[in-house]
Amino acid sequence: MYIENINGPEDVKKLSDEQLNVLAEEIRKALLEKLSKHGGHFGPNFGMVEATIAMHYVFESPKDKIVYDVSHQSYPHKMLTGRKDAFLYEEHYDDVSGYSNPGESEHDHFTIGHTSTSVSLALGLAKARDLKEEDENVIAVIGDGSLSGGEALEGLDYAAELGGNLIIIVNDNDMSIAENHGGLYENLKELRETNGEAECNLFKAMGLDYIYVKEGNKIADLIKAFKQVKDTKKAVVVHINTQKGKGYKLAEEHKEDWHYCAPFDVETGKPLYSFEGEDFSSVTADYLLKKMREDKKVVAITSATPTVMGFTEDKRKEAGKQFIDVGIAEETAMAMAAGIAAGGGKPVYGVYSTFVQRTYDQITQDLCIDSNPATIVTFWGSVYGMNDITHLGLQDIPMMSNIPNLVYLAPTTKEEYLAMLDWSIDQDQYPVAIKLPGGEMISDGKEVTKDFSQLNKYEVTQKGSKVAIIGLGTFYNMGCEVAKTVEEKTGTKATVINPYYITGIDEALLEGLKKDHDVVITLEDGFLEGGFGEKITRFYGNSDMKVLNYGVKKELLDRYDVKELLKKNRLTVEQIVEDL
Amino acid sequence: MYIENINGPEDVKKLSDEQLNVLAEEIRKALLEKLSKHGGHFGPNFGMVEATIAMHYVFESPKDKIVYDVSHQSYPHKMLTGRKDAFLYEEHYDDVSGYSNPGESEHDHFTIGHTSTSVSLALGLAKARDLKEEDENVIAVIGDGSLSGGEALEGLDYAAELGGNLIIIVNDNDMSIAENHGGLYENLKELRETNGEAECNLFKAMGLDYIYVKEGNKIADLIKAFKQVKDTKKAVVVHINTQKGKGYKLAEEHKEDWHYCAPFDVETGKPLYSFEGEDFSSVTADYLLKKMREDKKVVAITSATPTVMGFTEDKRKEAGKQFIDVGIAEETAMAMAAGIAAGGGKPVYGVYSTFVQRTYDQITQDLCIDSNPATIVTFWGSVYGMNDITHLGLQDIPMMSNIPNLVYLAPTTKEEYLAMLDWSIDQDQYPVAIKLPGGEMISDGKEVTKDFSQLNKYEVTQKGSKVAIIGLGTFYNMGCEVAKTVEEKTGTKATVINPYYITGIDEALLEGLKKDHDVVITLEDGFLEGGFGEKITRFYGNSDMKVLNYGVKKELLDRYDVKELLKKNRLTVEQIVEDL
Repeated sequence: MYIENINGPEDVKKLSDEQLNVLAEEIRKALLEKLSKHGGHFGPNFGMVEATIAMHYVFESPKDKIVYDVSHQSYPHKMLTGRKDAFLYEEHYDDVSGYSNPGESEHDHFTIGHTSTSVSLALGLAKARDLKEEDENVIAVIGDGSLSGGEALEGLDYAAELGGNLIIIVNDNDMSIAENHGGLYENLKELRETNGEAECNLFKAMGLDYIYVKEGNKIADLIKAFKQVKDTKKAVVVHINTQKGKGYKLAEEHKEDWHYCAPFDVETGKPLYSFEGEDFSSVTADYLLKKMREDKKVVAITSATPTVMGFTEDKRKEAGKQFIDVGIAEETAMAMAAGIAAGGGKPVYGVYSTFVQRTYDQITQDLCIDSNPATIVTFWGSVYGMNDITHLGLQDIPMMSNIPNLVYLAPTTKEEYLAMLDWSIDQDQYPVAIKLPGGEMISDGKEVTKDFSQLNKYEVTQKGSKVAIIGLGTFYNMGCEVAKTVEEKTGTKATVINPYYITGIDEALLEGLKKDHDVVITLEDGFLEGGFGEKITRFYGNSDMKVLNYGVKKELLDRYDVKELLKKNRLTVEQIVEDL
Repeated sequence: MYIENINGPEDVKKLSDEQLNVLAEEIRKALLEKLSKHGGHFGPNFGMVEATIAMHYVFESPKDKIVYDVSHQSYPHKMLTGRKDAFLYEEHYDDVSGYSNPGESEHDHFTIGHTSTSVSLALGLAKARDLKEEDENVIAVIGDGSLSGGEALEGLDYAAELGGNLIIIVNDNDMSIAENHGGLYENLKELRETNGEAECNLFKAMGLDYIYVKEGNKIADLIKAFKQVKDTKKAVVVHINTQKGKGYKLAEEHKEDWHYCAPFDVETGKPLYSFEGEDFSSVTADYLLKKMREDKKVVAITSATPTVMGFTEDKRKEAGKQFIDVGIAEETAMAMAAGIAAGGGKPVYGVYSTFVQRTYDQITQDLCIDSNPATIVTFWGSVYGMNDITHLGLQDIPMMSNIPNLVYLAPTTKEEYLAMLDWSIDQDQYPVAIKLPGGEMISDGKEVTKDFSQLNKYEVTQKGSKVAIIGLGTFYNMGCEVAKTVEEKTGTKATVINPYYITGIDEALLEGLKKDHDVVITLEDGFLEGGFGEKITRFYGNSDMKVLNYGVKKELLDRYDVKELLKKNRLTVEQIVEDL
């Protein structure tokens, strides 16, 4: 095998054309084996094997710098830059992260996991190079799906003005995670169909030079194209037409399903572990589809991740015009939600906690200034969510709960969630966001009769004395457990409170606790800094009440173990009882 | 005068072609008089007079909905929609805000002050219309300068897919606030030069229909074009070529200077009140220019507001390649700063507090995950900053100080600021942001020897007992005043602390205060919720220390009076002493 002898790009350069093709097959074989056992991004990596080989054949990494957009297509790059063992040997599978990572290799320049950043980051590297009067190539590799994001379009626009070398490889596999959405994809199609010759050309309209490579999975053609642009003195787009999932028939045929995979059986493609029950994704789609049938003004919005809100292909079809996928364009998704609400529609934008970060200004300006009554649902904002440093769900409380006019709610069960969603969709006073709890979805069958329009009204679910425990969202149940343990150990029955509201405090209730309580405990699923508990503590700052805030210390964690993280932050029943 | 009889668009429709032209002149005359006395956005409004008349002649507002991007060109619209008195009569000048405002009129649909939002908001209105099966026109009016912003480009891309009526009027006056930057402006130029005929067309490349109006200040031509697109069934761009500042010679000739004006003498164009001294803008540019001469790796970055960091046209020229204006593209500015730092350059991105809101995700992902050592300077983040609801500078502390890895500093004087800037530029460990204080710049001539690399080390500037006052940034001096008054009144000498660091607490120092202090007071210039003081309060939550946090209660304020706001939030020396 050639791959076993590749310790860096210099070893790629030694191979003949034919050997490079064999290398591509070896990479695919290793990827298939690892991904079938380990899971990971499938389609993007299978499509980029040849282009990655060609890049390392032509360019001089790490002197020449390659920046991968979203970097879920960077596995072949890792294999060619000294990290092959993490793909060849099972015991080394976890030696590397799923994203580019400067901590792993000098061939990686940024830790990247959000889309649409590569061109702007590469512009920065190129500008630094020019300031230092050096002459390396800077290469941004961006998928067609990522092009629709604001940061990418801004970067493409500025690139022409940079006035120095910048090579933008547009990896066009005609797919985002799901299908692409947006007018520019018609232009990419036209360019593919005209072998890059169409006069109307998005990239040229942004002032960029342009070449097209029809066979984006043919190493020889790619090498030729990359040689042609190497050392260019101005920004150029190399538009390569690749096949997502190439080399594994099921992935070629079912591109959306195979964007990312859990461990699976190579023969059948079936996942090794399957989950058939309800979760917050499926109940969201089921609830919304029902609501849509009853009310034509209800519309669900996604920014390229429809399945997180349960909208699989068949459910999208069922929703028809009442489902919008704006593509990777979170800013537009949030602004459209605001606009639809202003126009009398009833929008629900479902978004991962980590990606809602892209809409801070849209929440503030477009949504909240005019209190446009749209509904936002944040998914996976939890210690139990994704644990890559690029995809943490720990910031949405500090980010969103301090924006004026927003009502941010934290349900603890399925029933509370659906009651909040129902209220939010039908009210026309407030922009509302709902933070789904992490961990397994709890369904207790209880009817929820609470009137959520009485803002910031917390609920005492157990009346006690001395100790009051305010358990927000995910950690409400840990609060109940703490109360139970305290009672068992000391006989003291603690007060337990479900606050529901993240964006405000129930002053009357908190004031009342002063009478017969000495300690208030707050629990929240996210960073403590700027979070929920601190608002409670500030309220009591001038009183004798002691307040203990539990949550996660602000820190950029990477691939953490949940149990360890909770323990480190004293977020276990035992530790909290001990602190008391 | 016709304008005196215009109480709504229906009155515009009654006028003949010739009368419409007279109306345009009357509007300009009123604008000139108001702006010369009152100040406001000048160039954008002067350029849009004819187009606004033509829109109200052709479309049926408020049934047809017009959304103005950034809305600093909405004065003529206000004059034609029942608000003429606010432009004709001095005693009514303040009856209207400087931006579109649904609270003022049913002809305004959003309160807008940030750029690049109109297309996405209009998409929302259009979608709501389609859900309700109604048929009005939705019109987004966007300037060429705003096109480079991510939210605008995302919206343009999605517009083609909407599948219903949407009219995007691109008001091309070949200027942003300063000159435009980015490759797309070459395409606009080509379109202008070919009377819209160039094959390569950014808008068509995004799947949009397109028509061009060469004479964007000719009412008859505009009416013809608008009639042509009225009731269109798909998204169309009407590209109109207007003249910024048209009708006032000085504004036509000096477009950047006349984007916005303070009160001025109509004859000479000279401002009535002039300011010659130093401020944080001028010292920033002067310091950076010096630093640039010493170190070729230093580079200043702006996103279309170069003068806020003191870079007037001549200073931009002096800086040459060491000054970057990316245009209205905050995301790219922040990402480029990260990339330049990663590549070994020394970037300083100067940005208004209200606009840094657009970069939450770029700060988190591009800047902080890899701790790229760029420097951000936030201007006007203060109660003393802009007071329009769309331009508040009160959120940067909650927004930025809770992002892991960022070092956010708060100087209180010119000397502290320059020392921080100097340290930040030359260090290579941390992403650093510096929050400039509000109000008049204080220069005390003191040499600053503090080592800022000792993170979160606060400084006790007066050692006392019982009461400790932690005054952050702007309000450090108020803290000193409080201490003085307390001593005068009670004989107690309070401890005064300059914390410098917004992003972390000095645990050793705070712990030490427990010995001989009973009360800690925090003062900060921004929203209390999620802010600096709450971190201090949390630290003391489990102790007997009383903590009082002073800052502004989270609220979307509009055109507030600073003194009243401070009083309302008990942010005066007298009130604080009283609370003690």
